[in-house]
Amino acid sequence: MEKCTVVFNPVKKSIIVKKGANLLEVARKAGIFIDAPCGGKGNCGKCRVKVVSGEHQMEFTPLLKEEELKNGIRLACLTFIEGDMVVEIPHVDAVEGIFVEDIKPGDEKSERIEKACKMLTEQGFKKDSGAFSAYLKLPSPTLDDNVADLERLKRELRKKYGINNPVCSLNVMKTIPAKLREGDFRVRGLILKDKYSCEVVGLDGFYTDGIYGICADIGTTTVAVNLVDLTTGEIIAFASSANLQIQYGGDVISRIIYSGEEEGLDRLKKSIVDGTINPLINKLILKNNVKRENIILCVFAGNTTMSHLFLGIDPANIRLEPYIPVFKECPELKAKDVGINVNPEAKVILLPNVASYVGGDIVSGILASGIWAQDENILFLDLGTNGEIVLGNRDYLLSCACSAGPAFEGGEISCGMRAAPGAIESIKIDRETFEPSINVLGDIKPKGICGSGLIDLIAEMFLSGIIDSKGKISREVSSDRIRYDEDLDVMEYVLVRDKDSYDGRDITINEIDIDNLLRAKAAVYSGLSVLLNSAGLTLRDVDKIIIAGGVGSNLHIRNAINIGLLPDVDESKYYYMGNSSLIGAYLCLLFQEARDKAKEISDSMTYIELSTFPFYMEEFIKACFIPHTDLNLFPGVVGLLEKNKRR
Amino acid sequence: MEKCTVVFNPVKKSIIVKKGANLLEVARKAGIFIDAPCGGKGNCGKCRVKVVSGEHQMEFTPLLKEEELKNGIRLACLTFIEGDMVVEIPHVDAVEGIFVEDIKPGDEKSERIEKACKMLTEQGFKKDSGAFSAYLKLPSPTLDDNVADLERLKRELRKKYGINNPVCSLNVMKTIPAKLREGDFRVRGLILKDKYSCEVVGLDGFYTDGIYGICADIGTTTVAVNLVDLTTGEIIAFASSANLQIQYGGDVISRIIYSGEEEGLDRLKKSIVDGTINPLINKLILKNNVKRENIILCVFAGNTTMSHLFLGIDPANIRLEPYIPVFKECPELKAKDVGINVNPEAKVILLPNVASYVGGDIVSGILASGIWAQDENILFLDLGTNGEIVLGNRDYLLSCACSAGPAFEGGEISCGMRAAPGAIESIKIDRETFEPSINVLGDIKPKGICGSGLIDLIAEMFLSGIIDSKGKISREVSSDRIRYDEDLDVMEYVLVRDKDSYDGRDITINEIDIDNLLRAKAAVYSGLSVLLNSAGLTLRDVDKIIIAGGVGSNLHIRNAINIGLLPDVDESKYYYMGNSSLIGAYLCLLFQEARDKAKEISDSMTYIELSTFPFYMEEFIKACFIPHTDLNLFPGVVGLLEKNKRR
Repeated sequence: MEKCTVVFNPVKKSIIVKKGANLLEVARKAGIFIDAPCGGKGNCGKCRVKVVSGEHQMEFTPLLKEEELKNGIRLACLTFIEGDMVVEIPHVDAVEGIFVEDIKPGDEKSERIEKACKMLTEQGFKKDSGAFSAYLKLPSPTLDDNVADLERLKRELRKKYGINNPVCSLNVMKTIPAKLREGDFRVRGLILKDKYSCEVVGLDGFYTDGIYGICADIGTTTVAVNLVDLTTGEIIAFASSANLQIQYGGDVISRIIYSGEEEGLDRLKKSIVDGTINPLINKLILKNNVKRENIILCVFAGNTTMSHLFLGIDPANIRLEPYIPVFKECPELKAKDVGINVNPEAKVILLPNVASYVGGDIVSGILASGIWAQDENILFLDLGTNGEIVLGNRDYLLSCACSAGPAFEGGEISCGMRAAPGAIESIKIDRETFEPSINVLGDIKPKGICGSGLIDLIAEMFLSGIIDSKGKISREVSSDRIRYDEDLDVMEYVLVRDKDSYDGRDITINEIDIDNLLRAKAAVYSGLSVLLNSAGLTLRDVDKIIIAGGVGSNLHIRNAINIGLLPDVDESKYYYMGNSSLIGAYLCLLFQEARDKAKEISDSMTYIELSTFPFYMEEFIKACFIPHTDLNLFPGVVGLLEKNKRR
Repeated sequence: MEKCTVVFNPVKKSIIVKKGANLLEVARKAGIFIDAPCGGKGNCGKCRVKVVSGEHQMEFTPLLKEEELKNGIRLACLTFIEGDMVVEIPHVDAVEGIFVEDIKPGDEKSERIEKACKMLTEQGFKKDSGAFSAYLKLPSPTLDDNVADLERLKRELRKKYGINNPVCSLNVMKTIPAKLREGDFRVRGLILKDKYSCEVVGLDGFYTDGIYGICADIGTTTVAVNLVDLTTGEIIAFASSANLQIQYGGDVISRIIYSGEEEGLDRLKKSIVDGTINPLINKLILKNNVKRENIILCVFAGNTTMSHLFLGIDPANIRLEPYIPVFKECPELKAKDVGINVNPEAKVILLPNVASYVGGDIVSGILASGIWAQDENILFLDLGTNGEIVLGNRDYLLSCACSAGPAFEGGEISCGMRAAPGAIESIKIDRETFEPSINVLGDIKPKGICGSGLIDLIAEMFLSGIIDSKGKISREVSSDRIRYDEDLDVMEYVLVRDKDSYDGRDITINEIDIDNLLRAKAAVYSGLSVLLNSAGLTLRDVDKIIIAGGVGSNLHIRNAINIGLLPDVDESKYYYMGNSSLIGAYLCLLFQEARDKAKEISDSMTYIELSTFPFYMEEFIKACFIPHTDLNLFPGVVGLLEKNKRR
């Protein structure tokens, strides 16, 4: 039987298959997700790929144009492999899959949002996005009433809505004569108002309705988007996917370095806007039958580097001492300026940053957390690709960033992955047999391990004696799940055997992975120590700890304490709030006053540069053990270990 | 000797030449102006043309890229004709020539501007364009002063200029990090301020200077542009050329009709912006060594149809009852929105219209005329492609439009042309010999006759008895300049013989031309009568008559009265103010308050629709004679005729 190698770009995954195999099936086998709603019957035309090189055959389809065929575009489901091939996958939705979810009242996501809205309302904020539909019946022009179209429209807006001299872009002006006459001078105006001005961002038929907004968290690893009905405030659906920039580096530093290469900045900008955000929006609007032109308001939150790359602004100085971003607060923009594929005149709000390593996502999270309205001292930890920590209450806000890297989102871990379908999100290991039991996200076989799963895994391996406090795997534990990897010269633990996994390969963790995770958790814990210290506080003064970020909604706080990632305080003090950045972006979408509050937070928050603290490095090294070199800090963990020994 | 026909598009001029002739020389012979600063030596590469079809040879030149050669681009000076050819001329500057003039204090144009400025100043207007250079020395960032670049810039603007939170577009933001660091945190900000907001439209080196503005009159036939130094207010240079839209029709109605054809609107928009205005600006900045990015403010004035086409907005309803334009007042735009090739963030102000047939050019002219500040009743006549008339003073402004057509700019007249080099601008005819004496604009042989020349010609032909009051050429006058055109079955008068003209062809006027001119002058005179009548006034109540527009600066008022175009009142009441629309645009460029005044004029001016006046048609027919059927209205002309008879 003849074998062929197929390489899938841009992820550079390769797979060896037999000649004649179907390309869609091969892609799936390689763990590459290609959307094929028709089930691979060649009917829907969604599984477009680009063949860069290699012999193959494709059945005829009327769905591809001659131009496309010339450019190597094929339907994967109709293509059969005849030799070694290189295939390019067009968008992130095809690379790793877009995860879409309808949001219903009572859902966890919906409840968190509701809670945040309630908090704002209690603080006296008025729910008003500034976006609305103006239903206008204009008198038809006559020789006596020969006012121009635009002035006629403005006259009615003033009369019916009290709006004086609204802004109207050239693009909208161009549509006026046809739109007015199509509907016999009845028209729906899509209006955006704020305290400074008012703009007509579009015209639609008088008998149409629906105005929508987008709010999104632009994470270094994961991008999450909500489609929101601006009339009701209801979240219609949620979608998330990998940030396609991942192909250029896992963390912000490597992206900044890449942005300095030729065309680097342009590629990074395109990856996030055209490659990630626009496909997510497309998916949401297609699935929910929403007209693109009716999306007129967008709020984005991201860290400072993501904010720069989102706008195509050079982030180089973020990385160089004295770490200066180009902007803290970005002026309001339009979708057409940024290239967001909604109504081109839609307002785009990017939440303001604090400093080079504390960005709009943290401002958004703090807004959503309500810390700024509390008397108690509250710690806020965002465990995403970076780790950011905020300490404060209504009187002060201190923040710092720890270079935790992408470990808690599964990055830089051999079998790590984002919290997406196929991710192992929680793990238990039997203390006797060392056999694991796992929970997988979604109804599929496991593909890898996400943040919460990794934390569970380290904790369970530690508590069951598979690893010691330095993270080394014991050679004395008797289990065929523990083995030696000759190539890497490290021990590893097999969590899922090949026959049980999604792609037929073992899911394992080795000592290098564990080391990465320990350094990540040490970065967070030591950052937290320094931050408390610089505020003159101790853990005892902290009344509440909020955990946010991409670590996964099924984070077991106890295990995070057990590995020494989180401080060993009463678990009731902990509160997990999920993607707080996305919640804050939602609040800014729906509450104009929340946008002002975000600015206030960004202005009032003090940023502490950890690297300038002489004892930071010392704290970091002490925290690189499980749970810590100073066991007095972790009495609960000591108790657990003693209980284990007694058994 | 073999002959070849060469057709030049888009003007569709054709010429027969011998095989082997040089294309640049042939073009010049055909009256087509192709810029060739090197004198046709093949060194400068400016004489690019596109060969659509036809055999030819071109000497090798490194100035053309392979891609250009493939697309038929040739240097005219190196190309030799081998057969019938069709050649396309890229821009209007190549079609008819851009006329550029340095403006110096004391020039007629400069004096008119000064007079208008003085008028505004006397009315209490402050000279302040809102544009200025901000010279900023920012403290270099440190770990202690780690404010972001944008905020650092804003901080200094606030400190030094009291500017709070200026707007900064994404394009400018992108340039900030490099611009700040290039000059060691010294930078020149290009600032645009008005009473509502302030914007940083560009950054330049600290040791650079110069900020510039453009003001322009977009005429149906002619476009005129001034390049202005915004620091001093000085006009650096003036440029004018034909409106390239002419290829799609000579008057606004035919352009509106053309805009309804497929791609018509797009072509008209491109003709005026890319084909006419941008080449004029290019010429001005190249000649005066001005950096494009330093042009940050532009004011345009045009009639309502030109305003629509300038923005690419469908003008269809201007032509259809009840004659509704899309907009009266256009919101402020940016150069990048319109496609004007200056600083992309430059503010573009388009002067507001009054109605479908009284546009921003008239508002601009009225602003410049100062009528709105006078007690006397003043008549304002703009004799351009259309004819617009305004009557008023500080208390009222009445306006109307007469469909005079382009006759007074040389349109629809066989040997007519714009007031550009080669135009015959004034004419006398000897009463005995019927031999003419002429004045030609520029130092070249005559090409055609412009508006003022045509008015002279009709008057002189009438007073010397060559034509009668109906405009018919007498067969009894004995002169070999009068002859019969068999093809057209009309009489004609030869003004310039072939050997004396620029292109070797006779310059003549025939009875059809004369008829067109009589209908044009009748439209103006009857419009004026109706306007006065509707205000309850007579000519005796008019204290002053201002003549403006493209009719030419050498208009002989006496001859305009003699043919019955202008009313027969004391010549001292007349004042010729040239391109009043361009003067008004200049005022709006330099005086922010003038922009408000223009809006006020546009809002307060009443438009009279002539076609609804039942006696308008009657007045028109009476005015189709020279000077008029009612000779009591023209006592001065009657006197002249009697004097002639006596002689």
